[in-house]
Amino acid sequence: MAKKITPRKEDYSKWYNEIVVQANLAENSAVRGCMVIKPYGYAIWERMQNELDKMFKETGHENAYFPLFVPKSLFEAEEKNAEGFAKECAIVTHYRLKNDSMNKGKLTLDPSAKLEEELIVRPTSEAVIWNTYKSWIQSYRDLPILINQWANVVRWEMRTRLFLRTAEFLWQEGHTAHATKEEALEEAKLMNKIYANFVENFMAIPVIQGIKSKSERFAGAEKTFCIEALMQDGKALQAGTSHFLGQNFAKAFDVKFASKNGGLEHVWATSWGVSTRLIGALIMTHSDDNGLVLPPNLAPYQVVIVPIYKGEKQKEDVFKVAERIKRKLISNDIRVKFDDRDKFKPGFKFNEYELKGVPLRISVGPKDIENGKVEVARRDDFSKSLVNQSQLINYIENQLINIQKVLFDRAKKFQKENTTRVDNFDDFKDVLNKKGGFVLAHWDGAEVTENAIKNETKATIRCIPYSKKEETGRCVYSGNPSKGRVFFAKAY
Amino acid sequence: MAKKITPRKEDYSKWYNEIVVQANLAENSAVRGCMVIKPYGYAIWERMQNELDKMFKETGHENAYFPLFVPKSLFEAEEKNAEGFAKECAIVTHYRLKNDSMNKGKLTLDPSAKLEEELIVRPTSEAVIWNTYKSWIQSYRDLPILINQWANVVRWEMRTRLFLRTAEFLWQEGHTAHATKEEALEEAKLMNKIYANFVENFMAIPVIQGIKSKSERFAGAEKTFCIEALMQDGKALQAGTSHFLGQNFAKAFDVKFASKNGGLEHVWATSWGVSTRLIGALIMTHSDDNGLVLPPNLAPYQVVIVPIYKGEKQKEDVFKVAERIKRKLISNDIRVKFDDRDKFKPGFKFNEYELKGVPLRISVGPKDIENGKVEVARRDDFSKSLVNQSQLINYIENQLINIQKVLFDRAKKFQKENTTRVDNFDDFKDVLNKKGGFVLAHWDGAEVTENAIKNETKATIRCIPYSKKEETGRCVYSGNPSKGRVFFAKAY
Repeated sequence: MAKKITPRKEDYSKWYNEIVVQANLAENSAVRGCMVIKPYGYAIWERMQNELDKMFKETGHENAYFPLFVPKSLFEAEEKNAEGFAKECAIVTHYRLKNDSMNKGKLTLDPSAKLEEELIVRPTSEAVIWNTYKSWIQSYRDLPILINQWANVVRWEMRTRLFLRTAEFLWQEGHTAHATKEEALEEAKLMNKIYANFVENFMAIPVIQGIKSKSERFAGAEKTFCIEALMQDGKALQAGTSHFLGQNFAKAFDVKFASKNGGLEHVWATSWGVSTRLIGALIMTHSDDNGLVLPPNLAPYQVVIVPIYKGEKQKEDVFKVAERIKRKLISNDIRVKFDDRDKFKPGFKFNEYELKGVPLRISVGPKDIENGKVEVARRDDFSKSLVNQSQLINYIENQLINIQKVLFDRAKKFQKENTTRVDNFDDFKDVLNKKGGFVLAHWDGAEVTENAIKNETKATIRCIPYSKKEETGRCVYSGNPSKGRVFFAKAY
Repeated sequence: MAKKITPRKEDYSKWYNEIVVQANLAENSAVRGCMVIKPYGYAIWERMQNELDKMFKETGHENAYFPLFVPKSLFEAEEKNAEGFAKECAIVTHYRLKNDSMNKGKLTLDPSAKLEEELIVRPTSEAVIWNTYKSWIQSYRDLPILINQWANVVRWEMRTRLFLRTAEFLWQEGHTAHATKEEALEEAKLMNKIYANFVENFMAIPVIQGIKSKSERFAGAEKTFCIEALMQDGKALQAGTSHFLGQNFAKAFDVKFASKNGGLEHVWATSWGVSTRLIGALIMTHSDDNGLVLPPNLAPYQVVIVPIYKGEKQKEDVFKVAERIKRKLISNDIRVKFDDRDKFKPGFKFNEYELKGVPLRISVGPKDIENGKVEVARRDDFSKSLVNQSQLINYIENQLINIQKVLFDRAKKFQKENTTRVDNFDDFKDVLNKKGGFVLAHWDGAEVTENAIKNETKATIRCIPYSKKEETGRCVYSGNPSKGRVFFAKAY
């Protein structure tokens, strides 16, 4: 806890890892590429789940649960999707261990318990879900189906980083079925909007909304809507995607419905998801060299109360005031923790909550009690104020609103300052190498151009923005005509 | 929906399956032994999660998340636990598929992507968690650790039944670490009490509380506390267990702490869990030949409003009243659904909600509006009342409380009537075969006796009750001295 964090300028990647570990968010496990999400990190995920779940339900979605395993034959059914995930999946081949006759106390695979068909641990659930929808959908009356699932998924990534890229991660995956193309497209757009709303207003992370180029699309999708955020090191992070899947999965799994006018048609599909990766985005958007910084809407506790006292008498007096403040805050729906631990000194606690990014810290000491005041310290700008206890609730409420806004505005400003319009490829490379961030440039729409740019610069098209103006120009790479600028960046 | 359910007397097991499927709770999937939990079934699970989670947090527990996979070497570390689960686990051996050169469009295991060490899909998480706790615990200051996890687990059962026994199921698993034996024992007992409280007061299922005999204990536990429920067919169902693990896992994973007086000691452990199996218990405790019956505290919606009308004018009037009632119920924290679907007739809806066990149904028709009344029907006893709209909220609130109580009392009465004291082995067998239920009999405490009884009758010791009176007697099987009666039963 007492260790200093490596400054961002010195080693950004080290800074990130140290925050994750020292703020008690997560750590690597004994299982290659899999992380342990520690209670404080998980509490943040629970806050995210609660809020998203509410948003999903308010827009008519229900939760359900589908199997962890995908039989290989189902996995193969939608070709592009299979291709996209075959190279990085965990495969179950046996269902029993037996005693190892060569090694006492050790176990070994039982060859007689080999599965006839291998099972893939789901990297995503389209296959298993569309195979299920087949029996749920007969007529237009059965549509739409609006289902979400909270689940773990596994993708066998070779290079992993806590939260950002792990072999197992937690996410939600929505899977909807519709009678018409228009309705499915509307659904995918709606979820894109919900994600943007959640990430901006709740996590205080500004995003660019738009669609993905063909090569950056989800395997099996016809159109992928995305939100893209910009991290403090100038790299982009894909924060949430919603896919219009066309009739690809309905065709792969033969899911048809009797339409109102009597025909038999394939069903239209969407899928959409956000994951624990968002916690990585959260850290890299707001945190500083002193540790995590949490937006109040997301913080597991928004306020921490630290008592300061010497001896039993002072302790009694201070605790009485602290408890009263705690009760008042709770009754005003403010999430608060009173740190009444005896075995740690106030300085140690101050340091801990700074590292953990708690938005506001109230300290209560004997002198404060005399004056009817308490000290309130902000995590984001380290400012401190003495506040009358009678005005405390009002003050705290305003500060929480203000911090949420300040964090968003600061990140928005950073995004703006690090979005650069360029009109030739030299500038393109120059900006990418020296400044980083989003590069807003003309592109001719060709995959071959996109690939060439990627090979030369490692930058990809992050997003073709909704807000694209009809501005004719010349592709920054090929010089061919372009109808508008797109966002390039190096990305996580 | 229109299909009749097979009566319990005709085929109990068929009745159970039909309720699960027709009430839209769950269904079998394409993956052997794995189920799809449908939205209505999942909504019940969410209600259970919410309530349990609150109880866990109120008693100081936090949630976290640990990896899905257990490396084989960790799995082996605690011998009894490994032995207990080795015969029924899913094993990941490869991390990549490749194109099958013999079969175009098909995929096959890539032999070059064989794992050096196999991974077991967690059947339970003691191993992976205690391997993690090792680095979290140095001193008594780090204790206790009170962590819970909501997760999926896999046990490769050969004979599966929806909710009751599935290869994959959802559960929560608590894993706590303590400085003393006494504290760990207290924790295990506390969780046993919380489970009993939840199952009795929330699910309206009466249980017997006590401990398991040695042979019925969790693999790796020193003492297993349990709650046992009795189903309508006279079979028992283990509804929740909490284990005092002693120092077994601390020793297997070398987890020691510096005690207050300077020594180095092994840590004491507990684990405890309930699963989606409880939904099976719920169905088999309360439901009848007309479908599911839900206790109000657990029902996803406690009240459904069905409008009755012909033509647009009536619809408008009826909807206005129905919407007003809905708003009033919501503002009184009553979970309500207004079924405004046009494409289904009232009779169809009545049938659907009967099948789905919604505790109260309000129907609103033109005549009711004239009289200022609505009809309220109870699911549990099918009684109907005309209630003044002005008194509706009060009436509904009282009915919900009453239904909760009636369901518990009915189940308690059944449990009592189906608990039989016997004093010789002929009566023991006779009761088991003809009447079923719990058999309360003297047992000499020997495992060999327990096994002999099991072999002859299929009955096991479900529970050595807390409430056991010090009543000396003779073992019903061996004739050896016994200090008290225990609960025997055939079980799920």
